[in-house]
Amino acid sequence: MLTTVGVAPRELERYRESVREGVIEAIREDAAKLAGARVLHINATAYGGGVAEILTSMVPLMRDLGLQCDWKVLTGSDEFFTVTKAMHNALQGKNHPWRPQDRDIWVNQNKLNAENWSDYDFVIVHDPQPAPLLYILRDSGRNPQGHFIWRCHIDLTDAQQQAWEMLRPFVEEYDGSIWTMRQYVRQGVPERHLKIAPPAIDPLSHKNEPCSEMQVKAVLDRFGVDPSRPILTQVSRFDPWKDPLGVISAYREVKAEFPDVQLILVGSMASDDPEGWEWYEKVIRRAGEDWDIKILTNMNGVGNAEVNAFQHASDVVIQKSTREGFGLTVSEALWKGRPVVGGNVGGIPLQILEGECGYLVDSSQQCAQRLAELLRDRDLRNRMGERGREHVRDHFLITRYLHDYLRMMLEVAEGSATEESAHAAPIAGAVGADAAGGA
Amino acid sequence: MLTTVGVAPRELERYRESVREGVIEAIREDAAKLAGARVLHINATAYGGGVAEILTSMVPLMRDLGLQCDWKVLTGSDEFFTVTKAMHNALQGKNHPWRPQDRDIWVNQNKLNAENWSDYDFVIVHDPQPAPLLYILRDSGRNPQGHFIWRCHIDLTDAQQQAWEMLRPFVEEYDGSIWTMRQYVRQGVPERHLKIAPPAIDPLSHKNEPCSEMQVKAVLDRFGVDPSRPILTQVSRFDPWKDPLGVISAYREVKAEFPDVQLILVGSMASDDPEGWEWYEKVIRRAGEDWDIKILTNMNGVGNAEVNAFQHASDVVIQKSTREGFGLTVSEALWKGRPVVGGNVGGIPLQILEGECGYLVDSSQQCAQRLAELLRDRDLRNRMGERGREHVRDHFLITRYLHDYLRMMLEVAEGSATEESAHAAPIAGAVGADAAGGA
Repeated sequence: MLTTVGVAPRELERYRESVREGVIEAIREDAAKLAGARVLHINATAYGGGVAEILTSMVPLMRDLGLQCDWKVLTGSDEFFTVTKAMHNALQGKNHPWRPQDRDIWVNQNKLNAENWSDYDFVIVHDPQPAPLLYILRDSGRNPQGHFIWRCHIDLTDAQQQAWEMLRPFVEEYDGSIWTMRQYVRQGVPERHLKIAPPAIDPLSHKNEPCSEMQVKAVLDRFGVDPSRPILTQVSRFDPWKDPLGVISAYREVKAEFPDVQLILVGSMASDDPEGWEWYEKVIRRAGEDWDIKILTNMNGVGNAEVNAFQHASDVVIQKSTREGFGLTVSEALWKGRPVVGGNVGGIPLQILEGECGYLVDSSQQCAQRLAELLRDRDLRNRMGERGREHVRDHFLITRYLHDYLRMMLEVAEGSATEESAHAAPIAGAVGADAAGGA
Repeated sequence: MLTTVGVAPRELERYRESVREGVIEAIREDAAKLAGARVLHINATAYGGGVAEILTSMVPLMRDLGLQCDWKVLTGSDEFFTVTKAMHNALQGKNHPWRPQDRDIWVNQNKLNAENWSDYDFVIVHDPQPAPLLYILRDSGRNPQGHFIWRCHIDLTDAQQQAWEMLRPFVEEYDGSIWTMRQYVRQGVPERHLKIAPPAIDPLSHKNEPCSEMQVKAVLDRFGVDPSRPILTQVSRFDPWKDPLGVISAYREVKAEFPDVQLILVGSMASDDPEGWEWYEKVIRRAGEDWDIKILTNMNGVGNAEVNAFQHASDVVIQKSTREGFGLTVSEALWKGRPVVGGNVGGIPLQILEGECGYLVDSSQQCAQRLAELLRDRDLRNRMGERGREHVRDHFLITRYLHDYLRMMLEVAEGSATEESAHAAPIAGAVGADAAGGA
């Protein structure tokens, strides 16, 4: 049986000062057409990870708009979550040796979760873990009502064939699907109601809400960061694709010109992730006893409020990924008015407009050059930071993303529409736009 | 209400080949006098830490001897365990600012745990967390039957006065108390039935059971340790009192003469211990990119079996503490026939007989000299290792410790005895001896 997740209320009205004029009204207009609709979001976990973070904002906003919105998560054994984690990795391209029983563990746990099903008008199923639910409901003759949408948050380009073949038949059941970027869509996915909607940040969450000079200073003090000296920050898991060793190389080049510069590397660690710990250790060893490099995690007491403060305090934010899901930390930094130097991969080029709100780089040397360039020129930093904030306001706030979901529901309900929908830019383009009238 | 802990059975007979002749019989003789006695052990936690480890062995052995032995743990909120953790630290000498409500949180949770009390003939209460239980039972008029013994596993020498004053009145209720070493006894503790009994290792636990060459090699391979090159190991938390930075200094001196030498530092990490993480990071930074230093924890998949293998594989084991509870890792290593170089503090000098089964040191330089001395001379290592194993066989096996508890119960029951008891050496001296007839 699925478990209901409780969330604190949120009011759309409070977002008015973050967004452009007319945006709140445009959202309300579409939401009115869905008034009273019963909507269910299903995913794997209530805490941790981008999906849970988004739903914590999205679900109460839908309620505020008059929809009857619920959020439920799968219940499962450790064994089940071990299998779905392996599947997640395999769908991102990692080779995994599947045992015959693995598929059964995955599907059977979904069968247990399908018990006591109650109907909704719209069911949005997030990611592969709960994907089999719809097939199971139909196959068992329970004839579920409503429209079913599959939301894929991961990049299936390099998915292991075997993992994709396990998933594909379940995905084909859905009335439509939503993807982060066009290039993440796996060949063979039904094009019916296939939508592109990149993720977004919540400007009122603890990670992004305004924070005072005093709050920032208190956090810097606590972790021994000197606010009077230049600060570079990367917020990312410690893994090869985020290239933390490349970031340290770039920092060392920059330090030759700016001996005072400090580097903050912030990551999140989980006790059940041995590879994460290996990389954490590698990074610390590379830093050695250069304590101007701070390496901080949840184990040191760093949470959303601290990340917020570090981004605020930075002169430049780095996101030197060599492979990236979407890289929403870029939008987080831009929203705080900080220029970002990032790897030219995944969703990063959508967020960093080259030379306007930061720079795209392909190597540590390039990264170092761009960092030095920005550290030399405060005006340039301010200009790029301001431009970045406006770019995020237009494209990467939760309001735009919320509107995408509402439009998707309307389209699926009308049985109309293709990706090139009359509902226009927000959902149709590679990047949605959060502007009144879909400009 | 207290929660019962389940444990796997153990047979004393299986220890016969680990102990001297006559020891099993001597234990059985005393146990016979207690046949059928109802015995209850109470402590704070079923997993983690030395007390839980000991009870996992002790409780089933008492059952095997015909006692009706139970083990129960306190139930408590996070808040309760935060307070008792602070108390534990304060009793070890850390200054703690007590809020008026802290004592209430501690005592009230014990009141809840005292509900549905059922009587035993002997109740052994471990450490400060459950210490108030006896007072609560008497004060509420429940008139508990049986003999109550308080077992203090910690060193109260430098206890914060305020913490000790909270604890003292509860301790005074007990019929007797058991302490690890004479110098740990706090002034003012009633001398009635006050016994000294150092802790001990279980030779059949996963950490100490015999392990084959193949098992050892598999573990070394897994963590990239080369069995053909010299190996030094320290197994200890990462904290200032275990002096891991001093160990690295010593290793670096040794490396000048033995360029092939490898150092394994193994520690256990908890996600709720920020100071532990700080020290873990300090150690890794000091090691830098010298990958001949392995720094391993439970996060890397190191558990008891791996610790066992590392100790087995070592040429010399190090325990360079500058302050120590008892330091049972020394006995673990000696039992595996490895010489140990250790700090001259706490219980370490009881375990390392100077120049016979290792060396006691007061500095990194001294430590380095002793390590080099041992690495130069295989015969010396073997000789000391063998002597160490026999020393542990005589004094630091669970059988001796089990016998200490049985004798303590007999003494308390007889209402007789002082520390200088007729029951002799094992319980009376600073180090108990596990020899037939109390030789």
